[in-house]
Amino acid sequence: MSYNSIIIRMELDHATVDFGQVAAIISKTGGDITSIDMIRSGQDSSVRDVTVDASDSLEPQIISSLREMKGIKVINVSDRTFLAHLGGKISTQPRLAIKNRDDLSRVYTPGVARVCTSIHENPHKAYSLTIKRNTVAVISDGTAVLGLGDIGPHAAAPVMEGKAMLFKQLADVDAFPICLDTKDTEEIIRTIKVISPIFGGINLEDISSPRCFEIESRLVDELDIPIFHDDQHGTAVVVIAGLINALKVVGKRMEQIRVVVNGIGAAGVSICKMLLAAGVKSLVPVDRDGIIFRGGDYAHPMWKWLAEKPQVETQQGDLKDAICGADVFIGVSRGGLLTGEDVKKMAANSIVFAMANPHPEIEPEEALPHVRVFATGRSDYPNQINNVLVFPGLFRGALDCRASRINEPMKLAAARAIASVVYENELNEHYIIPSIFNDQVVAKVRKAVIEAAILTGVARRTPPDFR
Amino acid sequence: MSYNSIIIRMELDHATVDFGQVAAIISKTGGDITSIDMIRSGQDSSVRDVTVDASDSLEPQIISSLREMKGIKVINVSDRTFLAHLGGKISTQPRLAIKNRDDLSRVYTPGVARVCTSIHENPHKAYSLTIKRNTVAVISDGTAVLGLGDIGPHAAAPVMEGKAMLFKQLADVDAFPICLDTKDTEEIIRTIKVISPIFGGINLEDISSPRCFEIESRLVDELDIPIFHDDQHGTAVVVIAGLINALKVVGKRMEQIRVVVNGIGAAGVSICKMLLAAGVKSLVPVDRDGIIFRGGDYAHPMWKWLAEKPQVETQQGDLKDAICGADVFIGVSRGGLLTGEDVKKMAANSIVFAMANPHPEIEPEEALPHVRVFATGRSDYPNQINNVLVFPGLFRGALDCRASRINEPMKLAAARAIASVVYENELNEHYIIPSIFNDQVVAKVRKAVIEAAILTGVARRTPPDFR
Repeated sequence: MSYNSIIIRMELDHATVDFGQVAAIISKTGGDITSIDMIRSGQDSSVRDVTVDASDSLEPQIISSLREMKGIKVINVSDRTFLAHLGGKISTQPRLAIKNRDDLSRVYTPGVARVCTSIHENPHKAYSLTIKRNTVAVISDGTAVLGLGDIGPHAAAPVMEGKAMLFKQLADVDAFPICLDTKDTEEIIRTIKVISPIFGGINLEDISSPRCFEIESRLVDELDIPIFHDDQHGTAVVVIAGLINALKVVGKRMEQIRVVVNGIGAAGVSICKMLLAAGVKSLVPVDRDGIIFRGGDYAHPMWKWLAEKPQVETQQGDLKDAICGADVFIGVSRGGLLTGEDVKKMAANSIVFAMANPHPEIEPEEALPHVRVFATGRSDYPNQINNVLVFPGLFRGALDCRASRINEPMKLAAARAIASVVYENELNEHYIIPSIFNDQVVAKVRKAVIEAAILTGVARRTPPDFR
Repeated sequence: MSYNSIIIRMELDHATVDFGQVAAIISKTGGDITSIDMIRSGQDSSVRDVTVDASDSLEPQIISSLREMKGIKVINVSDRTFLAHLGGKISTQPRLAIKNRDDLSRVYTPGVARVCTSIHENPHKAYSLTIKRNTVAVISDGTAVLGLGDIGPHAAAPVMEGKAMLFKQLADVDAFPICLDTKDTEEIIRTIKVISPIFGGINLEDISSPRCFEIESRLVDELDIPIFHDDQHGTAVVVIAGLINALKVVGKRMEQIRVVVNGIGAAGVSICKMLLAAGVKSLVPVDRDGIIFRGGDYAHPMWKWLAEKPQVETQQGDLKDAICGADVFIGVSRGGLLTGEDVKKMAANSIVFAMANPHPEIEPEEALPHVRVFATGRSDYPNQINNVLVFPGLFRGALDCRASRINEPMKLAAARAIASVVYENELNEHYIIPSIFNDQVVAKVRKAVIEAAILTGVARRTPPDFR
């Protein structure tokens, strides 16, 4: 049950009703009045904003009781979530004030002409003389937004704006939301290339699978700035971070474990790739049709790719077969797929990351008696696998060293950095992943990413603190 | 002659040179040292930032004298204009802080999902629940930047950023620069349509003629948000504003005057259109090939359009022919086209707007003995025709009333509003146009634009102060 503040704007007809009756109805239906603002008071009627604390489930009842009362007109109902979104969640600000004509002639015509000419002569100067070096586009076509699916570019905007807020607050990256009114793969690629000059990096977001693979890989090849599809790699990086620490808790090594990954879409593919890069020798990818096995014949390009890997098992069957004897289960699929009996069949000291949203593949109450380490994507259980741990520090690092791309070593370095924020003496079954509010995360991820970028030759600048 | 502060970073070899000698050289070559910052001081050498005030013309000599001195290494030279551009000129900021998990769950997952769903059900809510209602894209392909021509999208960015600063500072509009890496008309149109969902308006900028006409008119037809090519209409609006007041000064009326417009490109076409809308009955457009006359045969679509207008004269000839007996000359062409003898042949009480950049069609010294009112695009003479007077208030108004487009009546209303900022008792030959720092301009333009939008049926919302 979750509590919410709602603000009810209502007009009262003085001849028919008084506010005491209103207050009584609200209390009776389970609401708690916390404040009242008089908006307009007239001879015959008055308008008030009444703030009421109530549980989500009681909210509709309170409103309908008010609507049924004679002499009351409910004009509008807002809750704090909607109020937080009024007018949008980000703004653009000048970095300096134009106080007089002298300032104006420096930042605009005629002075700006010399700056333009200088960039024209040496395009690399865009990194020092424009916003490029600190600016990331958060781009979606609105086809796979949260658990909501294809809701279109306008409805996707609040997520992109939220992400832009997090970029700025956590890592001082200026991010701007771009919502694309097209679902055509080629047109998305072409549009992003055409608008790329002002951006120092591109964060792709909530683009449905399998188009997301082609869009990302083509942009990586055709642009020289970092491209990162967060739904794929953000989740994968935190999963690997969590797994590094979970393995320490249970005393196993990457090379020893047998891992089942269920749900081989955007995130699942990237998780499999990173598991292989991290040294996993026995991998069982599973999707709706069952186990994706070595030697199998698949149309999906990434499944095909997996079926050729020597670390992928030849065993065939479904999820229930796959999970027998597994050390690790990683779910990025849908809620309620597993029972306690299923996870009971895993190897001793098993690890389960059940990250389906909003309901995990297995509820913690059912899993916990049988597994040693349990994590979800939810904030109301311990060990939340949240990609907010990744993208701020990752882009901070990539921008600071002007990385031309974000490669596997940089992602693996980010995962290790996130894991390292939980010190060995703090580590336990219920604490394998740091909080997103832990202020060491961004700095450690940034540092690790820059080191990996320099080492792999994709850094085009050495930040001052690395000289 | 213009003065500049330059910052010279230099390394001094202690064995060869001391700072006294450096100071002496700078003074001798005409520089004035205003501050010194020690950046690094070692046993053998030291690095200092030396700020020097000097006229633009002496700057190269100061630097070369220093470079020639033994024991000095000039590491870098920055002036205040370049320093103002370091890191770019705008940033994005969260409109609220995420202080804890409760805040996060409101502006990001899971709370944001309800907001997304609400917009999905009613896309019009994007105007209240996202940044759309206050956000304008400043878009260029970098083909006609200032007087610099086709310098490309990266080099265009500083102008677009400067414009975004002005939007915010003058009219509290959030503007974001988009620089397009294509010159193809269809691709520009398509790209802007694809990225349009997050924006409440589009300011096109520095796109070369004649592509700019097609791009703008197609976007006006195919999108339902205001599209405004500032190079065309921004200039035209201020010209009309200036002309309204200049006519008051000389005691003539729009219906009586004969107007020569020289340079029928982006701005020239829009000026001609607005002059006709404002009531001018006798118009002589002139381009490089001479007078564009009624009944003439032209390939350029806008010239063709002009040649069919009854107000356009049938007289043929060149600029020198056109100007004889003209009441008004409006130049948006190139420097030094006219002499004192030419403008002497105009009608009595003549008005000359010579707006070529950086050098006007005729220098004020040469024109002023013969003309009554003289204006240029430059800030160092009276009567500056500057489109910074237009776009902030115009978009403020268009956004506030959710105008679906910016039509001719709205532009004409903006021109009249700008003219009205100069009161009748202040009006004279040297003061026909308000300063861009006059704080009445934006409010008056906004109000006039909203009134015109409501009157012409393109407003989709009545702002509270108009109810």
